[in-house]
Amino acid sequence: MDNIKKFRELVKKQKAYQYALTMVSWDSNTEAPRGAFERRAEMMGVISSELFKLSTGEEYQKVVNELFNIIDTLEDSLQREIKKAKKNLDKIVKVPEDEFVAYRKLVDLSQKIWEDAKEESNYNLFKGNLKSIIEFQKKFIEYYDIDDLPYNILLDEYEEGMTMDEYDLFFNTLRKDLVPFVQEVLKAKKTYKSDFTGDSFDVKKQEEFCQYITDEFAFDRSRGLMKTSVHPFTWNTHPGDVRFTTRYLKNMVLSSIFAAIHELGHATYEQQVDEKWNDTLLSGGTSMGIHESQSRFYENMIGRSRAFWETHLDKFKQVFPTELKGVSVEDAYRAANKVEASMIRVEADELTYPLHIMVRYELERLIFSSDIDIDDLPKLWNEKMEEYLNLTPQNDEEGILQDVHWSGGMFGYFPTYALGTAYSAQIYYTMKKELNIDEVIKNRDIQLINEWLKNKIHQFGSSKTPREIMLEVTKEEFNPKYYVRYLKEKYTDIYLTK
Amino acid sequence: MDNIKKFRELVKKQKAYQYALTMVSWDSNTEAPRGAFERRAEMMGVISSELFKLSTGEEYQKVVNELFNIIDTLEDSLQREIKKAKKNLDKIVKVPEDEFVAYRKLVDLSQKIWEDAKEESNYNLFKGNLKSIIEFQKKFIEYYDIDDLPYNILLDEYEEGMTMDEYDLFFNTLRKDLVPFVQEVLKAKKTYKSDFTGDSFDVKKQEEFCQYITDEFAFDRSRGLMKTSVHPFTWNTHPGDVRFTTRYLKNMVLSSIFAAIHELGHATYEQQVDEKWNDTLLSGGTSMGIHESQSRFYENMIGRSRAFWETHLDKFKQVFPTELKGVSVEDAYRAANKVEASMIRVEADELTYPLHIMVRYELERLIFSSDIDIDDLPKLWNEKMEEYLNLTPQNDEEGILQDVHWSGGMFGYFPTYALGTAYSAQIYYTMKKELNIDEVIKNRDIQLINEWLKNKIHQFGSSKTPREIMLEVTKEEFNPKYYVRYLKEKYTDIYLTK
Repeated sequence: MDNIKKFRELVKKQKAYQYALTMVSWDSNTEAPRGAFERRAEMMGVISSELFKLSTGEEYQKVVNELFNIIDTLEDSLQREIKKAKKNLDKIVKVPEDEFVAYRKLVDLSQKIWEDAKEESNYNLFKGNLKSIIEFQKKFIEYYDIDDLPYNILLDEYEEGMTMDEYDLFFNTLRKDLVPFVQEVLKAKKTYKSDFTGDSFDVKKQEEFCQYITDEFAFDRSRGLMKTSVHPFTWNTHPGDVRFTTRYLKNMVLSSIFAAIHELGHATYEQQVDEKWNDTLLSGGTSMGIHESQSRFYENMIGRSRAFWETHLDKFKQVFPTELKGVSVEDAYRAANKVEASMIRVEADELTYPLHIMVRYELERLIFSSDIDIDDLPKLWNEKMEEYLNLTPQNDEEGILQDVHWSGGMFGYFPTYALGTAYSAQIYYTMKKELNIDEVIKNRDIQLINEWLKNKIHQFGSSKTPREIMLEVTKEEFNPKYYVRYLKEKYTDIYLTK
Repeated sequence: MDNIKKFRELVKKQKAYQYALTMVSWDSNTEAPRGAFERRAEMMGVISSELFKLSTGEEYQKVVNELFNIIDTLEDSLQREIKKAKKNLDKIVKVPEDEFVAYRKLVDLSQKIWEDAKEESNYNLFKGNLKSIIEFQKKFIEYYDIDDLPYNILLDEYEEGMTMDEYDLFFNTLRKDLVPFVQEVLKAKKTYKSDFTGDSFDVKKQEEFCQYITDEFAFDRSRGLMKTSVHPFTWNTHPGDVRFTTRYLKNMVLSSIFAAIHELGHATYEQQVDEKWNDTLLSGGTSMGIHESQSRFYENMIGRSRAFWETHLDKFKQVFPTELKGVSVEDAYRAANKVEASMIRVEADELTYPLHIMVRYELERLIFSSDIDIDDLPKLWNEKMEEYLNLTPQNDEEGILQDVHWSGGMFGYFPTYALGTAYSAQIYYTMKKELNIDEVIKNRDIQLINEWLKNKIHQFGSSKTPREIMLEVTKEEFNPKYYVRYLKEKYTDIYLTK
């Protein structure tokens, strides 16, 4: 009993330090002046190091271990907390502190190195750091001494319980069923009249429209806000304070809108988590994959639906009367769902997106399951892009160097992007049995979708695993067939019919 | 030597916690949604209590006391730090913890009670809390066991080294020399054609003009920013990140402008403190009074000068061509210096302002130097307002209850407002010997004034006492005659000449 009280106290303290760090990061990403950063790093270094001490200290270890020894006597949610805490601790305490510090330093420096390498489009400038990061990761995995394959251990860090076996099955399905379909679509005649990229869309007006959309999605502004930043992101400290950003590109109005709706999905998830988890390790969304499933659901299943554009094109045209003169619902819908093979993942459309992820997954899999030479990655990258998308990157910038993740040591993260999108399709077909989604959208009643997701997914925070969520919501394990079915139905209609 | 290192470490840690609290307060005052506050209070409660432990803990006490014992062997600035630290500690450790906690609770609750009492304009609703706060303060002062008068101890907390003797001399000068002059001016015919309050001045355009002003004052935007909030304030974590806010009132454009310039003064002070004090107890402006002297210098000596309006009226009219049609420099200058007896301190003009403070000072002096009945304060307040400003408040809201300070236990704070303004006049006459201030303003070279103040005052942060600053800058002790002279010269010209 004393241990439970102690555990609660220590967790709450960690939460407070995390809160402070999170607040400062919001400011850093939205408005802090240049002059803030040097001292900020120093001050936040002190707070981070206190947090690290708290979350790995002997006192915390002792209480977690003692509770772990009597775990069967604890109530369910506390069992889950203790297992999570124990799992993390067991890893961290096995890594020698000096190596951990050296690794943190390496990673801190590598982002800048990656930026420079990307700017010069020269993989050679970055590959030394990349090799060192990978070596550290492999060494750490050995220290963990967990009876599993190295890449599985990394995959589990971003999506609890997911393994190469399941991801292989998933990506094999995509390779077999989706790649030929994508190639067929790419060969079809383009069906959109305009992609709204040529014109210049006033940024203030874009913001006005996105504020309108935010209200249409019933985002609770008393418990959050929307702002701008260089890269869109969602931020939260607890369900009462959930913020998201987007960025407005003058010549890519649809991109601005979908970035906002995507983040709105993440934000709605966080706003709808039950406040009862606030002081526990079970607060916030349960995994990267489930989180992405929500953002993609809002972005693709709602925002890119025909029903959505039937309902909101009028307002869109009201904001941009000149720019959108003569645009029909069908024009807008098709522009929102334009398919085009492209080099850059973050700019990819809904249909080709997972193939970008597949390339990255296959490379990561090789890195951690074979003796692949890190020097060969750009070549391999380019071959796979050619195979799946018929495109050959002309240089490292638009190839292997395009994404920041590896410079931060994030291996195992990428596949959750595709997995989450696939989850969203499976959730979509489940929801359709209970809600007429198109009607809900046309009736401007998205609140009903929010409530459905709150009841089935959001409220539970991290108290359920992604696997439990998928099983309880959809009554079956994750199955990629729904994703393929969704994409084929939608894009056959747009590109291959008539 | 080890003690110095330890002291530095402990101070730096305190700074980091303070940094986090400061960041969160910025967010609270500028954009946090309503839903943030409850949990925020809980989380920041944890951080505050850690900070309290750090800054009063045995480890810190030990190192401060040991360094205090060898203080003569330390270098000057460290001597000053240790004295400051020791002085604070000696007070805090003498107050029993349970009483301190009870007091903090009382104060936290009292702000809301004051708000309600003010809204209902009913002093009786607040006086119980006020009595308890005063009792606590008197008790704490006894605990401190300092050989000085109670009110002197409070005055010293806000303006190091200032005593009732000096304040009495200051306010006696005002009572004797300024009150009759003010009454003469109040009887004179009003000299302003328009006070620019009747019109409706677009808020976006006000902001545009204030941004222009901010640049004219050479505010370094790479190390700070300007935003809006309900009440204007200046905020900083260190000289590299200094922010200030203003608020735009549609029907009081001059008030918006002067609020911005006032905060700009505070902000410029903080931006120009030498970064070498960052990790010490000597960072930031040295006292409330010196700080106010800077904000008032920028607001009154620059912003309300004839030279300023000669230089910037064109731009002002460019932003508001219709609203300012036919306004001359003299019109603008006189509107900016309109004198009017009024009930509310924060809305008072430059000339009548110190009399509001004098009322508050005399009441505080009575509270802590006599057995005055707290029930009688409203009556006393009203009598003094009658005596100095020929106005009788019709109710508690526009009388004794107008200011928040007492509900937060801030006794001894008010007089620094008037003192700072008086400092600014003494500094003004010193600066005039070295700079042709009017020419500088007309040449749009305010940077020269910034530099003068940086060299003489700002750079030193808190490494010098207010008394040292005044003596070194002006070559004499604080002397209220400059303030009276400044006001008489200026307002004789505007109101009593011709």
